[in-house]
Amino acid sequence: MGIRVAIMGATGAVGQEFLRILEERDFPLAELRLLASARSAGKTMRFKGQDLPVEELTHNSFQGIQLVLASAGGKISRDFAPSAVKAGAVVVDNTSYFRMHANVPLVIPEINPGDIARHQGIIANPNCSTIIMCLALWPLHQRYQARRVVVATYQASSGAGAVAMHELEEETRAYLDGKPFVRTVIPHPYAFNLFPHNSPMTDSGYCEEEIKMVKETHKIFHSDAVRITTTCVRVPVLRAHSEALNIEFESEPDIEEAYAILGGAPGVQILEDREQNRWPMPVDASGKDPVLVGRLRKDQSQPRTLDLWVVGDQIRKGAALNAVQISERLFKV
Amino acid sequence: MGIRVAIMGATGAVGQEFLRILEERDFPLAELRLLASARSAGKTMRFKGQDLPVEELTHNSFQGIQLVLASAGGKISRDFAPSAVKAGAVVVDNTSYFRMHANVPLVIPEINPGDIARHQGIIANPNCSTIIMCLALWPLHQRYQARRVVVATYQASSGAGAVAMHELEEETRAYLDGKPFVRTVIPHPYAFNLFPHNSPMTDSGYCEEEIKMVKETHKIFHSDAVRITTTCVRVPVLRAHSEALNIEFESEPDIEEAYAILGGAPGVQILEDREQNRWPMPVDASGKDPVLVGRLRKDQSQPRTLDLWVVGDQIRKGAALNAVQISERLFKV
Repeated sequence: MGIRVAIMGATGAVGQEFLRILEERDFPLAELRLLASARSAGKTMRFKGQDLPVEELTHNSFQGIQLVLASAGGKISRDFAPSAVKAGAVVVDNTSYFRMHANVPLVIPEINPGDIARHQGIIANPNCSTIIMCLALWPLHQRYQARRVVVATYQASSGAGAVAMHELEEETRAYLDGKPFVRTVIPHPYAFNLFPHNSPMTDSGYCEEEIKMVKETHKIFHSDAVRITTTCVRVPVLRAHSEALNIEFESEPDIEEAYAILGGAPGVQILEDREQNRWPMPVDASGKDPVLVGRLRKDQSQPRTLDLWVVGDQIRKGAALNAVQISERLFKV
Repeated sequence: MGIRVAIMGATGAVGQEFLRILEERDFPLAELRLLASARSAGKTMRFKGQDLPVEELTHNSFQGIQLVLASAGGKISRDFAPSAVKAGAVVVDNTSYFRMHANVPLVIPEINPGDIARHQGIIANPNCSTIIMCLALWPLHQRYQARRVVVATYQASSGAGAVAMHELEEETRAYLDGKPFVRTVIPHPYAFNLFPHNSPMTDSGYCEEEIKMVKETHKIFHSDAVRITTTCVRVPVLRAHSEALNIEFESEPDIEEAYAILGGAPGVQILEDREQNRWPMPVDASGKDPVLVGRLRKDQSQPRTLDLWVVGDQIRKGAALNAVQISERLFKV
């Protein structure tokens, strides 16, 4: 009764997390094929007490596979997803490549699970910052009708992959030891430093990461009624993104009710201790499933507006977990 | 012709910076008295090639002193500033204690230099995040009339003092070495982590740091017409605060003109290279006088609104430099 699954990009930060999550959730597997670049072929990865071999990804890698979990970069998905679909698999793609394609559903299972059934072989997983924002925004939007969101992100190194996480640690160690360091992945000084998100800049003045957060939210919500402006920033945090959200609503929100709504929302957990001045932090969210929310307060600068603080594991709910949750619904496991 | 100056809290992060700035700017000194707690008395500090002794701060420390640069904490200023004023000195106070007192001017020299002359012995230096925001906000406000600001801060460890900067480094080193670490100043995990600002929480849901940014701006601008909502966050950066500003104006701003306004504004420097996707970073601002601004863009979520990115050295323009600039105007040096 198991499903025959392949992971494309198995050795990356998200790929490794796919293995952890499939094991934790006891996803029913008839086969688990680990695919990566030729460089990684021959390695093994640990899964349920076994060492599974990593195979080189080719166009013939998908024979008999029913589900591909893809996170090997946009170009790899562009080139190989069609081969997987041709071989009869459904691809749940974690890259940005197919997200805005008209016939590709873009899904956060807590928000638009109904879109899964409309797939034509490929289902896209949203951007990590989008998922984390939307999990908090959607339940409040359902109740109070969000009109405008101003969001500033605090994005971890994990968003640039396992190599970037390692590089942040190594650059920081070199800094503390007063030694020189040559960066290979991160484009700017990162030890005890931060920088506006380095995705390509557009003529609008927004970088692509910022535009993704807007366009993907509109696609997931099936509406562009919520206007959004974003500032995306990479901070020297290893894992888990934080976001400061300012949300203007159509109707006046009530703080206690808003807490209750978020407290009961799927995929969301309130984490705060007002007496201790203790609010969600990246270390709280790291390795955890729910997106953590706190610091709800009435914006004193205008009516019908809330400020809140959201932190989510970028590799987990921001990527691998969301893709596995899509897969669980797809295969009704 | 020199001025007889005392530094209260000479050994702290801002105290050390006072010495550097007085030396760099060749501030005319007839005397420089270094005051600190009994713990630091007997130490020496380097100034213009000499070792100056650190003396214990007492109520008798101010004999003959004309100017006190104070940065030893709010309670120390509360207790000792009156003694300094009684002894005939003017106190330029870097703590928050007197900032909102009605008869104490709160001054950013680029914005409200005229308030300096109204002092009654004490002049207050604004909060670091306030100064950094206001330097970018004020010139745009002059031209387009700001109505509402949504700001998210990315505040460095330096904001919690020299000990916090050291603790961030040491905790990070322990983390990298897999060793335990006992924090003494910072209340939360800080190595590769961040947390909402730990200043006391108020019933409004805003913490005191956030409220300072609003109230101080209104006092400096002589108007509460600019409504402001703030989210203050401490990030694992050593020095220099960053801020994401979203500013709604009364009249429609022009991006090129806004760049020109900020490029010509005192204390502000545009730093960006759009082709290279290169924007202001904390390491750019550290040890520098101007507040760095970049990423001006039209907010696509509503008209008459700009997003921009500001980075400033929290110890320098956010504290010591601003206080010295006030002193220069006060003594017409």
